[in-house]
Amino acid sequence: MLNVKNVNLGKVRSSIRELFEYGKKRKAEIGEENVYDFSLGNPSVPAPPEVKSALEEIIANTDPVALHGYTSAQGDFSVRKAIADYINSRFSTTLSADCLYMTCGAAASLTITLNAILNVGEEVVVLAPFFPEYRVFVENAGGKLVVAECLKDTFRIDFKQIERALSPKTKAVIINSPNNPSGVVYGEEEIERLAKMLEKYSSEHGTEIYIISDEPYRELVFDKSIKVPYIMNYYKRSIVCYSYSKSLSLPGERIGYIAVNNSMGEWEEVYAGICGAGRALGYVCAPNLFQRLVAKVYDKTSDIDVYKSNRDILMSALEEYGYSVVRPDGAFYMFVKALEEDAVRFAERAKRYELLLVAGDDFGASGYVRISYCVSPEMIRRSLPAFKSLAESYK
Amino acid sequence: MLNVKNVNLGKVRSSIRELFEYGKKRKAEIGEENVYDFSLGNPSVPAPPEVKSALEEIIANTDPVALHGYTSAQGDFSVRKAIADYINSRFSTTLSADCLYMTCGAAASLTITLNAILNVGEEVVVLAPFFPEYRVFVENAGGKLVVAECLKDTFRIDFKQIERALSPKTKAVIINSPNNPSGVVYGEEEIERLAKMLEKYSSEHGTEIYIISDEPYRELVFDKSIKVPYIMNYYKRSIVCYSYSKSLSLPGERIGYIAVNNSMGEWEEVYAGICGAGRALGYVCAPNLFQRLVAKVYDKTSDIDVYKSNRDILMSALEEYGYSVVRPDGAFYMFVKALEEDAVRFAERAKRYELLLVAGDDFGASGYVRISYCVSPEMIRRSLPAFKSLAESYK
Repeated sequence: MLNVKNVNLGKVRSSIRELFEYGKKRKAEIGEENVYDFSLGNPSVPAPPEVKSALEEIIANTDPVALHGYTSAQGDFSVRKAIADYINSRFSTTLSADCLYMTCGAAASLTITLNAILNVGEEVVVLAPFFPEYRVFVENAGGKLVVAECLKDTFRIDFKQIERALSPKTKAVIINSPNNPSGVVYGEEEIERLAKMLEKYSSEHGTEIYIISDEPYRELVFDKSIKVPYIMNYYKRSIVCYSYSKSLSLPGERIGYIAVNNSMGEWEEVYAGICGAGRALGYVCAPNLFQRLVAKVYDKTSDIDVYKSNRDILMSALEEYGYSVVRPDGAFYMFVKALEEDAVRFAERAKRYELLLVAGDDFGASGYVRISYCVSPEMIRRSLPAFKSLAESYK
Repeated sequence: MLNVKNVNLGKVRSSIRELFEYGKKRKAEIGEENVYDFSLGNPSVPAPPEVKSALEEIIANTDPVALHGYTSAQGDFSVRKAIADYINSRFSTTLSADCLYMTCGAAASLTITLNAILNVGEEVVVLAPFFPEYRVFVENAGGKLVVAECLKDTFRIDFKQIERALSPKTKAVIINSPNNPSGVVYGEEEIERLAKMLEKYSSEHGTEIYIISDEPYRELVFDKSIKVPYIMNYYKRSIVCYSYSKSLSLPGERIGYIAVNNSMGEWEEVYAGICGAGRALGYVCAPNLFQRLVAKVYDKTSDIDVYKSNRDILMSALEEYGYSVVRPDGAFYMFVKALEEDAVRFAERAKRYELLLVAGDDFGASGYVRISYCVSPEMIRRSLPAFKSLAESYK
């Protein structure tokens, strides 16, 4: 008998991956241009040009033994220092290099953090809709996922639901803003209220609750007036899981970091737990070349305007056709109300129009579908008649 | 309360890393050239020139969205196909691309494989001396490490010890040849006998036992007459955990693979378990750029002659000074008998002569020290008087 849980995880792909594979097959059948694939969050905008020139420069001018050698497990010191300084200058924090731990991307940041803090049976609260792999990561670390639904129709934080979700076993709350799949950005007031609620609850119950902020979409915000509050400024027991996958369009290279808030008394213990968990999970160090790369381009982003323009085209068309859309302020996802109660059936029907939309059920929000609009503007324009016909089919 | 096990793993560095950190401090105090650091297995020979030219070519000529995008979780199909074909041509196997799973290096290969096959409480037999992180990886996957000691003085397989270590709970045996830390290469006869023993035991007890072959040092063999048997040719339930870290001098870039033997009936189940475990541990895919790289240079190696010449200089000098050395046929480690019973005390005394040697105790073999001779030939020559003085201090 193999490990049944992992065999099943390997056999049953996530619904997103499943749809993506269907799309590949369908494209082979009827031509790439005739399938409107909104399934995956794979950036369509190339990495900024500075990425290529920095990679070329590093490879040309670095001694290969140093360039490709092990870094320390937590990451190269000068890389961590550069990123810590940048965070401090942006968010008025006082992080040292020793608060940072370089990782192989956001998923690694999350699994390492969860394994550092969780004991068997402890609970992690997630706000629905949420990235479905959170469940896999939490359960693999021995924890139990507890879902707190967001407010209907707006997908902002529902504090009654958070209150209901908390228990003496709550060890962490994961927040993800800009949100996958809704595109919602939590405002300062919401974050402050969440922080106060958790402080009150944990002091009343003599427990420790960490906020894990999963931030692959931090830089993908479409309006300068919209601020994404930095969790460390509001809550001491906070850990930021960052990734360069989306901001630099490097999802396949696996580079990101964990930042531990040094305002909490036990931050060095938390950091030690992260080092230990990284070791136990087999993460020896984050890729050296890409550590060096991000130290040079951490303040660059891909051309986000493409995503913003995609959002605008798609939103105004969908609303015109009669869809209800939650307005996304960031990321590159849009959450749209299904035109029948069962979003899975709705997504199946959309396939008849060659529209690949992910049902919201796995995200903990039934009745909605997710559109990943990190695609070419041409595909968006070509897809509009299909969205129109789909809506008309319900009239 | 954080996860105490992981906090402790993060605080208590491996004895190898501990010594390496001591070495860094000592070098700052008395000058790099005066410390003879044999602690780490960090290749001293640069990557072969083809690595640099291939990286440059890939970066110059690949569309950045494809180059840096996600690959499928198991790795890019054409990369897996190229490697499977290469393995087949070398070892007369019949692997398809779907037997291969690309990983972030050997540690990831091992943790993913162990999480795929182990259930809580099942046992994994390792042959001492063994790489100490095996214990961390096995225990994190819920398993129990069982040590079978090798034969004294030769460090070849002791079949009596294997027999003693087997139990109805045995799920896997890890072999590592060329071996870290002894440099020993297991011959065909040993591998055949091991395979037969495990087949007999598992058929008698109605159990399944996998051989996990950890092969970061496969290409590092100093004599063409010495063959490293390919486990799939001898044992059906076998899984190869490979890494390019040492063969291509790329340890910091984290690239390797798992190959599942398709001769066993349940190989697709095992592969599914590997996909699931990779997902649960947070390994989204191996770095895209380095997947593409190894598809171009999988048959190249760094200049291994340097390691061979290091071995020869060191071995003849040490034997002349009166040390007992286990002759290494591969890897870049040498296992030397301590000149007093307690190897930890011996390694401490060696520090007085600025020699940094790792005591064998953590490798499951007391009374020996490990010398990592992946260092410059100049350092080896400079270190010889220190080895001589150390030996004389015991006379």
